[in-house]
Amino acid sequence: MSAPDDMMIGPEPPSNFMRHIGYRMAEWREGLSVITLDIRPDHLNRSGVVHGGIFSILIDTACGFAATYCARPDRVRRAMSLSLTTSFTGQATQGLLRTVGRLKGGGNRIVACTAEVFDGQGQLLAIGEGVYRYRSGSEKPEGVPREAPEAP
Amino acid sequence: MSAPDDMMIGPEPPSNFMRHIGYRMAEWREGLSVITLDIRPDHLNRSGVVHGGIFSILIDTACGFAATYCARPDRVRRAMSLSLTTSFTGQATQGLLRTVGRLKGGGNRIVACTAEVFDGQGQLLAIGEGVYRYRSGSEKPEGVPREAPEAP
Amino acid sequence: MSAPDDMMIGPEPPSNFMRHIGYRMAEWREGLSVITLDIRPDHLNRSGVVHGGIFSILIDTACGFAATYCARPDRVRRAMSLSLTTSFTGQATQGLLRTVGRLKGGGNRIVACTAEVFDGQGQLLAIGEGVYRYRSGSEKPEGVPREAPEAP
Amino acid sequence: MSAPDDMMIGPEPPSNFMRHIGYRMAEWREGLSVITLDIRPDHLNRSGVVHGGIFSILIDTACGFAATYCARPDRVRRAMSLSLTTSFTGQATQGLLRTVGRLKGGGNRIVACTAEVFDGQGQLLAIGEGVYRYRSGSEKPEGVPREAPEAP
Repeated sequence: MSAPDDMMIGPEPPSNFMRHIGYRMAEWREGLSVITLDIRPDHLNRSGVVHGGIFSILIDTACGFAATYCARPDRVRRAMSLSLTTSFTGQATQGLLRTVGRLKGGGNRIVACTAEVFDGQGQLLAIGEGVYRYRSGSEKPEGVPREAPEAP
Repeated sequence: MSAPDDMMIGPEPPSNFMRHIGYRMAEWREGLSVITLDIRPDHLNRSGVVHGGIFSILIDTACGFAATYCARPDRVRRAMSLSLTTSFTGQATQGLLRTVGRLKGGGNRIVACTAEVFDGQGQLLAIGEGVYRYRSGSEKPEGVPREAPEAP
Repeated sequence: MSAPDDMMIGPEPPSNFMRHIGYRMAEWREGLSVITLDIRPDHLNRSGVVHGGIFSILIDTACGFAATYCARPDRVRRAMSLSLTTSFTGQATQGLLRTVGRLKGGGNRIVACTAEVFDGQGQLLAIGEGVYRYRSGSEKPEGVPREAPEAP
Repeated sequence: MSAPDDMMIGPEPPSNFMRHIGYRMAEWREGLSVITLDIRPDHLNRSGVVHGGIFSILIDTACGFAATYCARPDRVRRAMSLSLTTSFTGQATQGLLRTVGRLKGGGNRIVACTAEVFDGQGQLLAIGEGVYRYRSGSEKPEGVPREAPEAP
């Protein structure tokens, strides 16, 4: 199934979840990721503003990508969330959200990342941090062969 | 627009966000809420398990409802998230998720809640806590008239 | 150096930190710990109430103990904090704080706990959760020989 | 009671808590604070490393100061913690800890801050974020008269 270029995660097509929520990868390099989301009506809660959980999704996603950049197109790195926090500093009803995730530190197996969510005017709407454990083989920068996790 | 009975939030139809993610209200009373989610492929991340952000959505939603129960069908209470945490204790790929939110304490204007997410076998998958500030008028148990927030 | 009975951690004398802050072990069994703290002037911040960081200490401590109970007096289990949260629901200026920590779930190596801090009247003052990784050998209920970590 | 210059909080003497834990104010200006702590044996847990709760204290303190800078020496601003998080990225046994707190955003009454704890070599040991509510009068940059909170 084809996907718009900015939904590709490097050479990898987007997950179903990514398609469903609609966020896109704007930038990805060692220790950093930037993802964007065009606010749609189905992101709004019953008060008419973006649901708090959407900010948590964006933070978890940006942090997870920041932790798992892999320079080799045929390989991939994967991690699982151990903890995630979000502190809310603003609200949004429309426009583009831009989330910057950064790998901050940690050990070989477990790392911590932070992320910030901005609206289209650069106003900070939420901050958060996440702790991630690399899946087996993904601790190393070169990761594992891309197909491995889905292999039977 | 009509909605299945278990998507109704008391007498109120679901938000667009609730429809989009697909969670449902199973129980709601003073200080407690239970929401459920049938895991669908579009909840899964690129590792094939439920995206961490989905747990955060469920926790934020269950906590928010636990904080804002209103016994009067013509009135409503609303709150905004100030902070949200999630600690992950398990993973899921299919089946029903059940999230129980509880109001724990706080003052007149700001309260704290916790929530636990279980899989269909009663295994705990995630825990979290949230701090909420009531919107104006919603501090009181009787809340505000239902139409108010959407009025022009 | 001798210590009051209620400062003993099972058969183990208190850490320097425990003596310095002054908390005590009131109960410890599989998956649960209760620690108490008599509020002293040196626990108060410049607003005259217990410093927020004291609640975080109590939560981290109670969670850490809940994760590492060991029934054998000659052995011990140790864990390191990966993440810790605190949500504040009240304030205290004097009296006894009682913190209950509970092991909630997780895997063999990494677990999540929650804790609640109450004042002398049973009012909830703070809640929190922590994620812990067992040190090598401490994943198992029987732990490691008590002397091991301090051996030269 | 006199105090070393670097224990003064601007023109204000340190709280009992600050004296007890031993941290000092290294820098304080609008939206930023830097506090330092010389690691002492009574900061160490039973594994011989700095107790996780110490990092939470430093983060809460640095965030709280970052939120409440007041340029006028005769006035003061005060805030209370609503939530606090810590993600641990390293450990320390001795030397100087340096914690940088930053005000990130929020509204008039409630703000969010982040802080990072470094060891003497500049290695990141912990990160965290806190949400704070200003006490009455402290929302404004000019704060309230210094004596007010303690007045009978």
